[in-house]
Formats: sequence, C-alpha cells, structure tokens
Amino acid sequence: MRMFGKEIAPGCRAHFAKTVSESDVYLFAGITGDFNPIHVDGVAAADSFAHARIAHGALISGMVSTVIGMYLPGAGTIYMEQDSRFLKPVYIGDTITAIAEVADVLNPDKRIVKLRTYAENQKGELVLDGYAIVKAPESEEGWI
Amino acid sequence: MRMFGKEIAPGCRAHFAKTVSESDVYLFAGITGDFNPIHVDGVAAADSFAHARIAHGALISGMVSTVIGMYLPGAGTIYMEQDSRFLKPVYIGDTITAIAEVADVLNPDKRIVKLRTYAENQKGELVLDGYAIVKAPESEEGWI
Amino acid sequence: MRMFGKEIAPGCRAHFAKTVSESDVYLFAGITGDFNPIHVDGVAAADSFAHARIAHGALISGMVSTVIGMYLPGAGTIYMEQDSRFLKPVYIGDTITAIAEVADVLNPDKRIVKLRTYAENQKGELVLDGYAIVKAPESEEGWI
Amino acid sequence: MRMFGKEIAPGCRAHFAKTVSESDVYLFAGITGDFNPIHVDGVAAADSFAHARIAHGALISGMVSTVIGMYLPGAGTIYMEQDSRFLKPVYIGDTITAIAEVADVLNPDKRIVKLRTYAENQKGELVLDGYAIVKAPESEEGWI
Repeated sequence: MRMFGKEIAPGCRAHFAKTVSESDVYLFAGITGDFNPIHVDGVAAADSFAHARIAHGALISGMVSTVIGMYLPGAGTIYMEQDSRFLKPVYIGDTITAIAEVADVLNPDKRIVKLRTYAENQKGELVLDGYAIVKAPESEEGWI
Repeated sequence: MRMFGKEIAPGCRAHFAKTVSESDVYLFAGITGDFNPIHVDGVAAADSFAHARIAHGALISGMVSTVIGMYLPGAGTIYMEQDSRFLKPVYIGDTITAIAEVADVLNPDKRIVKLRTYAENQKGELVLDGYAIVKAPESEEGWI
Repeated sequence: MRMFGKEIAPGCRAHFAKTVSESDVYLFAGITGDFNPIHVDGVAAADSFAHARIAHGALISGMVSTVIGMYLPGAGTIYMEQDSRFLKPVYIGDTITAIAEVADVLNPDKRIVKLRTYAENQKGELVLDGYAIVKAPESEEGWI
Repeated sequence: MRMFGKEIAPGCRAHFAKTVSESDVYLFAGITGDFNPIHVDGVAAADSFAHARIAHGALISGMVSTVIGMYLPGAGTIYMEQDSRFLKPVYIGDTITAIAEVADVLNPDKRIVKLRTYAENQKGELVLDGYAIVKAPESEEGWI
C-alpha cells in the first residue's frame, strides 16, 4: 500500500515524545472528569501502590493517537480500534515516547492497517503496549 | 467479590455523562499533541468523512476511565487493559454517556474484573464499545 | 544546505492549520496576561474597529513558530528573529494556515536561513506577513 | 501626541512581569501546536544547546503585546508590526519583565508610534529585543 510516495509496510514506524507535566494531568482530569485520587491527590497517591500521583492511562493512549493521526498514517486516518495494556505507572515528570509501528496491512484495498502501538519512559521501560486498527487516507498523498 | 458492602457481579453498572465542548477538544489536542485537522481545522474537517470537527477517540476512552476509576470499581482500581472500538464520530456539542458494566469476575482472589465499556451519544447511538480489565481495590471498602 | 536527506533551498515550504477557538484566545490571555478588551470583552470589541473579539497577534505568530520548530527546518532549530506585520484581524472561529517558506540561505556554513513567514485565513486573505531568521539544526538529519 | 491626559513622547515606558511556569509553556504548546521537543521533552532538551526545556519565543513576544495592549499605549491600540530578536533562552521558572518604551512618534496625525520592545530575565539579562509599530487609540482618553 503506497502513501506519501512510499510503501506503508510492516516495520514502518513513527514516534512522538513529551515530558508529562502536572498541568497535563490536571487538565486531563478536568476534561474527562477522572479525578481518581491516584491522579490528583498527592497524599492519597503516596499511600497507594504507585507511591505518587500518576498520569491517566488514557492520556498516554492519547499520545499514541497523536502518532497515528499526525504521522503514521497521518492526517485523514480513521481510527477504528485501540487496545492498550497499561504495564507500568507513568509519573508526573516522566518523559514518554509513544510509538506506532506497522504490524500488518490487513486489507490493502480498503487500506486497513494494524499497528503495534506502545510507549516507553525515559528509562526505556515499556509503560503501555497494544495495537490499533486504522483506515489509512484514501489518497496516496494522505489527507486532501 | 464484595466491595463497598455489596457484591460486585455481572450486571453492575455505572456511568458518567458530559457534553463535549470545543474547549475540551482543544485542550485535549494541547495535552496530547494531536492536532490532526479532523479535530482542530474546521475547514479541512468539513471536507472529511465526518463533515465537521470531531472529538479525539482517546478523549471518549478517557471518559470510560472516569467511570472505572471513580465509580466502578472506583478509587484504588488498577487499570490493566482497555480495548476500544470507535464506532461513530463524536462531534463538538454531543452529550456523551460513558458506561462500565461488570461482564465477568475473572479472578475473585486477585480481584481481577472484566468490564464492558461503552459510550452513547444523546441520540442513544453507540459511539464506542469495548472492554476493560481492572484489578479492584484490595479493601472491601475500596481505596484506603 | 542539506537536511533530512534533501536540499533546503528557496521555495521549500511547510504549513500548519487550525481553527482559532474562543478557548485558544482566552487561554492565551491567561498565559501572557494580555486581557486587552479587543480580545476578551465582547461588548467593547463590538464597538471597536474590528467589530468583534479578535485573536492576539502573538498567537498567530506562535503558529508560525509551530511550522518552523516542527516542520521547516524542524526540531532543533534555533529561532533568532521574527518580524511580523499584522495585516487583518483574526476573529474567533477563523481557520488560519501559517506558512514558512525558505527565502534565502544567508550563511550555509552556520546554517542560517531566512524564511518568509505568513498566515492566511479561510478566505485566502493574508492576515500576517513577515520573516524569520533561524539557525537550522547542525545535523543533516535534524535534531539529535 | 497626547493620551490619558499626558504627552506620549520618547522615553515613556511601561512593563509587565511574570514568572514563566511549566504550565504556561505547556498550554502555549497546546494553543499553537508547537510541540518542538526543546519546549516539552525534558530528556531531548537536556541534550540540546539550552540544556533544559525553554519557553516559546512567541510566548515572550506575547508578554510584550500585553504591555502594549494594556498599558502603553493601552486598550484600543492597533498592533501593526512586531520585530523580535531572541537573544537568550527563557527557562521554565525564569521571571521575565517585558518592557515597551516609546522610541519615536512616526506620525502624530495618524497616531503611529514606534516602541522599543524588550524583555529581561531575573538576572537583568536581555532575552528579547526588538520594536513594535502601533496605532494609538483615536481618543486622548484611550479606548472608548
């Protein structure tokens, strides 16, 4: 399957990295309504399995969606499914790299692609792993 | 499996509803870095399959995580896995109800629960469907 | 001057587009402290030359910096100078495309580049015009 | 040229100061779309010329626009042009004072004024320097 003048094939990958700030976590709580104490209550979080406030898993999934919607396959992609396993807590201050990698072209005619989607912290630890099923843009040049 | 003084069993459900505003979508783009034109460029989005700007799928997944982390099983829950299929676009202005429903208690000793997780718009249309695997809090009273 | 495996030469261009929302303008006021009534007071703005609330010029300049820092020359670029002439008001709801175009490679050894930087609204009207002087990343592959 | 009951003449000045927070930088990225790693990726920024995450230049320009639009000449001013040279990195946590100083009244009839615009950090180092061309409000009392 061709896109942007090159072949979209297993192994193609793209990434997006960001240090997760306290304001990211607080705004995310404010948008979604998820004020679980593990995210916004430092005292309660200190007593928890994580020992400190952690980012929402869906925030890290959101960074995966950044890679898909902006870089691979990029603008015009239709997001069909996302599976995410949350493997390690992401703390405020962690620098997370979200990565999408073409795993399989499930249907070249309909441009349906399966991507492995994962994220690592600054120590190279896998914090999220899973896959996405997406429909790549119709045009070989991507979004019209 | 008992929690909050009652049995957690298949059929138990909880929900969270919110009208998705333009500022929700814009802040979500700002947190995750996902400036895919379908979310933030009204002119490009008008020409797309959706015909208008739509919310990020991960934002709606985030509302599912609100239900899980705040209500069922609630604070102290460890989020292990989330699978989400995005079935219909969510437009700015749509009122979304995210719902979690106990599907199965996979391991009562380890308190591992499978939930069906889904979301509906104001017309009752299913916009997201999937499941979550979570570890309920150790204590029967939930979060300590 | 080579970068990302291709020649950076006069005529190379990149863009970034976004519909400017009310929340963008309000958050921008909150970050910078610029609560000039033309931006945040709808009643006063209705009586002004613009007849409605308008976005801050520096917000549109910021979208130019997005193109420079993320796409051309991209991550690792050092921003040396920005000149912006504000030609037309940008209203809340306008869709703005910010564009950077290589005008001249001023010093190939030091990788100093002059870019024409401008922005258009959804009607194709020029709302901002100017230039930037930047130092492109040392490496031909961009940011290390 | 008279305004606010006094003469606007070379030497008149006004300022605005603020400590630049991490959330300022993150929200600015979120509004403009500028997720250049130098601003939001602490690990990558540590390896860069700046050695840490820095504020967007356009954010500091925005503080200059605060001085112009709110104090000198103040509300009702039409911003015609801004030239900014970025001289030193502004780090998260720096306290920045933006200053506008009347350099010349270019056209008293049309109330066109040239201002020197600059910003200093808490050590008194010049971080930004440039000029603005503005049209002062019609009325001597400023914005009506």
